[in-house]
Amino acid sequence: MAIHREGVHHRSKSSYAYAYDEETVHVRLRTMRGDVAECTLLHGDKFDWPDSATRTRMERIGRDERFDYWQVSVRPPRRRLCYAFHLSDGDESLWVTEWGFESKPLSELPTAGERRPLHYFEYPFLHPTDVHDPPEWVSDAVFYQIFPERFANGDPERSPESVEEWGGEPTLDNFFGGDLQGIIDNLDYLEDLGVSALYLTPIFESRSNHKYNTTDYTSVDPHFGDEETLRQLTEQAHDRGIRVMLDAVFNHCGREFEPFQDVVENGRESEYADWFHVHEFPIEFEPRPNYDTFGFEAYMPKLNTENPEVKEYLLDVAAYWVDEIGIDGWRLDVADEVDHAFWRELREEVKAIDPDVYILGEIWHDSRAWLRGDQFDAVMNYPFSYAVIDFLIERDLDAGEFADKATRFLGRYPEQVNEVLFNLLGSHDTPRLLYRCDGDERLLRLAFLLLFTYRGTPCLYYGDEVGMTGGDDPDCRRPMVWDEAEQNTALREFVQRLIVLRDDHRPLRRGRIRFDRERTTSDLLVYRRADGDETVGIAINRGDDQAVVEPTDEQWETLLRTDADS
Amino acid sequence: MAIHREGVHHRSKSSYAYAYDEETVHVRLRTMRGDVAECTLLHGDKFDWPDSATRTRMERIGRDERFDYWQVSVRPPRRRLCYAFHLSDGDESLWVTEWGFESKPLSELPTAGERRPLHYFEYPFLHPTDVHDPPEWVSDAVFYQIFPERFANGDPERSPESVEEWGGEPTLDNFFGGDLQGIIDNLDYLEDLGVSALYLTPIFESRSNHKYNTTDYTSVDPHFGDEETLRQLTEQAHDRGIRVMLDAVFNHCGREFEPFQDVVENGRESEYADWFHVHEFPIEFEPRPNYDTFGFEAYMPKLNTENPEVKEYLLDVAAYWVDEIGIDGWRLDVADEVDHAFWRELREEVKAIDPDVYILGEIWHDSRAWLRGDQFDAVMNYPFSYAVIDFLIERDLDAGEFADKATRFLGRYPEQVNEVLFNLLGSHDTPRLLYRCDGDERLLRLAFLLLFTYRGTPCLYYGDEVGMTGGDDPDCRRPMVWDEAEQNTALREFVQRLIVLRDDHRPLRRGRIRFDRERTTSDLLVYRRADGDETVGIAINRGDDQAVVEPTDEQWETLLRTDADS
Repeated sequence: MAIHREGVHHRSKSSYAYAYDEETVHVRLRTMRGDVAECTLLHGDKFDWPDSATRTRMERIGRDERFDYWQVSVRPPRRRLCYAFHLSDGDESLWVTEWGFESKPLSELPTAGERRPLHYFEYPFLHPTDVHDPPEWVSDAVFYQIFPERFANGDPERSPESVEEWGGEPTLDNFFGGDLQGIIDNLDYLEDLGVSALYLTPIFESRSNHKYNTTDYTSVDPHFGDEETLRQLTEQAHDRGIRVMLDAVFNHCGREFEPFQDVVENGRESEYADWFHVHEFPIEFEPRPNYDTFGFEAYMPKLNTENPEVKEYLLDVAAYWVDEIGIDGWRLDVADEVDHAFWRELREEVKAIDPDVYILGEIWHDSRAWLRGDQFDAVMNYPFSYAVIDFLIERDLDAGEFADKATRFLGRYPEQVNEVLFNLLGSHDTPRLLYRCDGDERLLRLAFLLLFTYRGTPCLYYGDEVGMTGGDDPDCRRPMVWDEAEQNTALREFVQRLIVLRDDHRPLRRGRIRFDRERTTSDLLVYRRADGDETVGIAINRGDDQAVVEPTDEQWETLLRTDADS
Repeated sequence: MAIHREGVHHRSKSSYAYAYDEETVHVRLRTMRGDVAECTLLHGDKFDWPDSATRTRMERIGRDERFDYWQVSVRPPRRRLCYAFHLSDGDESLWVTEWGFESKPLSELPTAGERRPLHYFEYPFLHPTDVHDPPEWVSDAVFYQIFPERFANGDPERSPESVEEWGGEPTLDNFFGGDLQGIIDNLDYLEDLGVSALYLTPIFESRSNHKYNTTDYTSVDPHFGDEETLRQLTEQAHDRGIRVMLDAVFNHCGREFEPFQDVVENGRESEYADWFHVHEFPIEFEPRPNYDTFGFEAYMPKLNTENPEVKEYLLDVAAYWVDEIGIDGWRLDVADEVDHAFWRELREEVKAIDPDVYILGEIWHDSRAWLRGDQFDAVMNYPFSYAVIDFLIERDLDAGEFADKATRFLGRYPEQVNEVLFNLLGSHDTPRLLYRCDGDERLLRLAFLLLFTYRGTPCLYYGDEVGMTGGDDPDCRRPMVWDEAEQNTALREFVQRLIVLRDDHRPLRRGRIRFDRERTTSDLLVYRRADGDETVGIAINRGDDQAVVEPTDEQWETLLRTDADS
């Protein structure tokens, strides 16, 4: 049987060959599924060849419906790496170099001659400054997303005049009075739940309830509090070991943003005329705005982030809240519609103040172009969300297909990115998970189990833990249910246990993930997280029939069963 | 017959989907060779869907031994693009989205439902600042590479004491007295030859003849001239419409570089201790240096370009020669062993002074990681050199295989990069072309024909045009032959004609390239360059038998035959 060359894929200096840390390079290869029995990396220093030539077996780290994925970790002593791959399927013996394929046994080097080093792939030099190095703490964190207007009303005097009674039905533009004091008041609850980081949707001055149309980036919305309230919240959260991430809406501002108002009033003569992308003056809002906007929303004018003044303004904003308040992360709204150059500068600016700030982009698609180390630490992992929903709820994917898809997704990014990808099952932009489950709590629990045992950093959407439901925006933004009688406390305890489990077992936070295809059936997904000597096995049965999964090791204990107390 | 899904490849925001200019996005797709008869791009604005959905046929722009490559150019009116591909082979009808494959006819959109926009690929927003935009002039330029110590001795008083007689045999460390005045004196020759840009290997103070071990980046080597000579050279070249590119050796310095000498003397106590990568103090040179070097060359200590002081020093150097002398390009030595962050800053620094400066990296491999618009304009196209040599000289590739390989290479980079790739057939780092041809001038002429009619910017290595020969370094660095009796003047005239041809026919400078597989045989390579209404066809016959290529159009003329005057 021949090795299918069309399925073999590698690219140097990409997610197929990247610096994992200052001393380590990860090298990956893709081959056709089932095509190759053994894969070996030939590697060394091109200036010390062939003396430095070393052969290292690669591990098959996963497979999807079409391909096998191989990986190996190497530490080039002089930080220079040239390499080639050798594939073997028993019959055929094939070298893969940057120049192509060559049939030769593993014992012989691929054809060298005078042009020898040219044949090989290269990771030319490993520079610490180019290493993608997300903050260490994120791997260990459990996030909790709060939509502040709907979490808790801690300071009724700050509520808008039109405030409605807590527990009412959300519309696109009504208010319930949630604020920062409300979050402060419930830090006990959050600490008890076990979360270690908060993600707040925007809190800066804005007329809407969601505040994605900013009026003033330099002040906290008066209905939410003021700078002092934000400082209190951050300090008190930090005292409990809870980090705080804010939402940076830099793609667009609100219609009431002063510079935009100036353009509305003064047109081409405004000193801010070039702060936006105005197609013609004067500004018109109807039928469609004659300036660039988020979507076609006239109330969200797109900012011209290529204008040095705008850049300086926004970067100062980003720096200010890190510097002044000590926030721990920026979630970047509509991150893929802002230029890469802007994000590079933002990273430099923010990391210079505090390298531990987590920079998280809102991108719903393949985000490789933003995850090369020069822009974001991670992105919101919606592809994961939809894969889980398709497997557990929609049943568009069976367990094997879920593993296929997940494997493909894991191959997109370097390991250190996968470790801090922002995994979520819902947000203020999607229907709630329980709503998607049509109220089926068993499925909800399985989804949570998957979330908390998967590679990456989990995030809970406020209230999901007590069984809140709701369809698409605005229904997914209902006021938090605080009345214990209305809370699903058993569910909350289950979530607590998942968090404790994750905290107690390092493999669940740091360990590599491997899908167990032999045990996986249509309804049953089995995978393992391993780190050092410890391995945690996870089996998720979406079916109605009981499934028995025998452990592979002699020494083992059951950590948790989702059906034990439901 | 089924469409082989394993051969289908696309990736958003890569060389498969990139901004060509401020209004245009190029989208490419790869399919298995011969698999697909028709390929269509479905595209539109995700916020205006499905109203904005448009179908555009893609062109098959090339094929290699395994794959077909498709491309289409689109201009998203709001600069936002979401898209999917439709493939058809007559029997099968297949959509390709970011989520996978879906069998459906072209008339029906791929499955949408509530998550519709998520399925598609996206080029989320086209920002001018992120467009890779190499200088316009480079597409039209013909470069001439000069190794100054060996081009012409214009000022014998500046020659080193040990200078040897012009025409002698080069060794690794002897001198012949070439200098900048020698280049100035021969600008007439260069203008007459028709070249429009010079690439000088390093000219800054250094003890060697090649000067890749810099002693002082801020002064011209006294054996070559001084700052005034460089100014004269640049001005007089500019007066003739000839640009000047210098060589920036920023990966490493020379052993005599003052900061390094300070570290040799003062060890850990030196204020420059962190300017290098010293593994232990004191510095030792033998048996291998105990500090990082280029290769294992003790006389070329690697600079720590991550150190802000080093960065500032080198960026000032880069800026100084652009600002002060008005040079037109920097060729970056050992570019792949310097960190990406440094190159990003260099680009910003230099382009801020003059956006027309050409930034060219010396990288011998796939260079996608440096050609995303934030670092280099282009790289030295050695993969092209070796493909030409393998086809014409080594005969490791037949004409079809050359076209396969060339097609694969052209697919690596955006079109605007291919247009300014630095195509060469030899340099100070390789044996001379005539040497490789074993003196066979017919092959040499065919290689030149290929070079000057290929997509990208051609570069001649000094003296190749008059029939100079020589093996690997140092033999490829012989003193220029100026005695007309020893020059191959017919060859020089042939090169002149090629340059005139290129100057006179825009398709040869700007036109897309298409290989004509129907006319290509084992020995005969046929391709076309087309731009607007004009097409230039090129046929290269490496065989001994005459080949007849009938033109495809009725209106045509023969522009040049390599055998007409040899």
